[in-house]
Amino acid sequence: MTDVAVAGGGLIGLAVAWRAARRGLSVTVVDDAPGTGASAAAAGMLAPVTEAGYREEPLLRLGLDSLARWPAFAAELEATAGTPVGLRTVGTLVAGFDEDDVRELDALHAFQRELGLAAHRLTPREARRREPALSTRVRGGLLVEGDHSVDGRAVHAALLAAGQATGVVLVRDRVAEVVADGGRAAGLRLASGDVVAAGATVLALGARSADVPGVPPLPVRPVKGQILRLAGAAGLLEGTVRALVRGRHVYLVPYAGDRLVVGATSEDRGFDPRVTAGGVHDLLHDAIDVVPEVSELELTETLARWRPGTPDNAPLLGPSSLPGLVLATGHHRNGVLLTPVTAEAVAELLAGGTLPEVAVSFGADRFESEPIGRTQWS
Amino acid sequence: MTDVAVAGGGLIGLAVAWRAARRGLSVTVVDDAPGTGASAAAAGMLAPVTEAGYREEPLLRLGLDSLARWPAFAAELEATAGTPVGLRTVGTLVAGFDEDDVRELDALHAFQRELGLAAHRLTPREARRREPALSTRVRGGLLVEGDHSVDGRAVHAALLAAGQATGVVLVRDRVAEVVADGGRAAGLRLASGDVVAAGATVLALGARSADVPGVPPLPVRPVKGQILRLAGAAGLLEGTVRALVRGRHVYLVPYAGDRLVVGATSEDRGFDPRVTAGGVHDLLHDAIDVVPEVSELELTETLARWRPGTPDNAPLLGPSSLPGLVLATGHHRNGVLLTPVTAEAVAELLAGGTLPEVAVSFGADRFESEPIGRTQWS
Repeated sequence: MTDVAVAGGGLIGLAVAWRAARRGLSVTVVDDAPGTGASAAAAGMLAPVTEAGYREEPLLRLGLDSLARWPAFAAELEATAGTPVGLRTVGTLVAGFDEDDVRELDALHAFQRELGLAAHRLTPREARRREPALSTRVRGGLLVEGDHSVDGRAVHAALLAAGQATGVVLVRDRVAEVVADGGRAAGLRLASGDVVAAGATVLALGARSADVPGVPPLPVRPVKGQILRLAGAAGLLEGTVRALVRGRHVYLVPYAGDRLVVGATSEDRGFDPRVTAGGVHDLLHDAIDVVPEVSELELTETLARWRPGTPDNAPLLGPSSLPGLVLATGHHRNGVLLTPVTAEAVAELLAGGTLPEVAVSFGADRFESEPIGRTQWS
Repeated sequence: MTDVAVAGGGLIGLAVAWRAARRGLSVTVVDDAPGTGASAAAAGMLAPVTEAGYREEPLLRLGLDSLARWPAFAAELEATAGTPVGLRTVGTLVAGFDEDDVRELDALHAFQRELGLAAHRLTPREARRREPALSTRVRGGLLVEGDHSVDGRAVHAALLAAGQATGVVLVRDRVAEVVADGGRAAGLRLASGDVVAAGATVLALGARSADVPGVPPLPVRPVKGQILRLAGAAGLLEGTVRALVRGRHVYLVPYAGDRLVVGATSEDRGFDPRVTAGGVHDLLHDAIDVVPEVSELELTETLARWRPGTPDNAPLLGPSSLPGLVLATGHHRNGVLLTPVTAEAVAELLAGGTLPEVAVSFGADRFESEPIGRTQWS
């Protein structure tokens, strides 16, 4: 019997486990292949402001709250794990490729100012002063000093080490079922048949969260993303470059010395695992349009994974309709950004019995007025 | 002591070994990783006619000779190995994407007719009747019924099996040196230090042929090619589609059920092993322009290898300036096509002492009137 059983050893599951263990709870995480889901694909942007134009305000506030937690979270994580997580605090530049793209930048900028967010419009020349590798075809930019990035895989590795150092038990098996006893979640059944009995059970299975037997209906669907990793980019970019290229979004996130992540497609194709010719083409085409030298980089990895999408693109945090089952899923495009606030809010709920104010409006019950069904979210 | 030591276990080395063994010679092939060089990347086109516009006539004649040998070669290889090699004899279509591309097709067609080669100009509608997956943007076509294809990796696997069945010995080690004794090649020294002593030594190391200690100077240089493999293409194409797309060449070769090879870049970058963003982008971009449905295919493999280039793009066959060292290298873009004629000509030289007429003009001595140096060929 453990205090907490966590289903899922991605960034969210491990971070919840670590923070809960820090509060003195005994925690067991179950995952047959920790860190090989969406966590393996995440670019690591900590970018609530540059995402703001396309998101609702409550999610923006949650993102800003989590962004503010990142420096301390990263520092404690690095100290406990003994390995770096690659937090970069140099800001993010958004480039507009053609006139229509720049008009969309202006709309984003207006929205950001309305919300009181710090962002500066740049001329093409100012944009290239900040990022000299930008194509001369770029027509305008927007600099957001506060949007940062982290190395998602390094964070995952550090969370594994920090969990171990803090007494978290990792069971490498597949979660087969959430076990209920007397109408209350009582732990996890594994593929091996073993049961991890627990006082509280946390669901952190990302895009698979709604597919586990024993879990009540949840509005989580897979949103496929294809992403590329390249090498040879040392010194190419100052910080993250996001861009609108003929109406399409692309981002380039430098990390770990000479590495660069280019992402990401967003596709409603269920659990389609294929890296496609069209997905890779579009990412490369747009990235090369914005930063021509990308053409010379080595393409080291192509990957397709699934984000856990929800009807309003915001996560599902806190109690579920099954007592004892706590949700930490549905993070869609913001899993890395929202890791600290998710972990700390859920750990507070587990240890203290109350979900902190910041997370209260992200319960799964916010969808209960509308019927949850295929017409709403799949 | 073996009759023949072959340096290199790619398509050429294994085919020479098999044919020499069939003539009763004892043969040892040395390669630390057989089939992982250019043979792994080859698309398998048997296409001397559609290559003809960009090649010299002697090479064309050699290619036509080898093409004529392919059906019997494939049949005997399949019978000996017990595995298929995927010979497709449905012809090749060349598509012209824009008006300039079609003008180049017309020039190619004129050249083919001048040489008495069978090729038919197609209207866009005729081209799409042959290949309904072609983009409606394609402006013209050229059908060459006689240009075929084979599955290069299946050929390599079959040659391994056929060699084994015919008594060829395969030593999995790296060739460290061609050993000479009294001014004559006497076999191969391996990385382990062992020596394979042989009456005759065959050099079939592809792009690495000129880099082996003990080999006399040879005008062979690496010509980098990047190539893609895709899945999900069952029924997409009738046969090979080559295309000129805004002056760039691309080809799409269907093989093995639902597979498709898209190739290939041609880059003078020495032994640069990197798959680059620009290389992959250009191949995908052109392939999708010509056959839009390629966009939906799964990208299963990206690869960079080096063709053995020569000053006139034709192979080096037969005696070298070092007595006892026989050349079977320099096949550039035509390794798969030229495998039968190379294997049979070199085996005839090894077993009977005379290089057949068809191969005589491809000796390395054809370059001796010009000094071999960087200005000529690197």
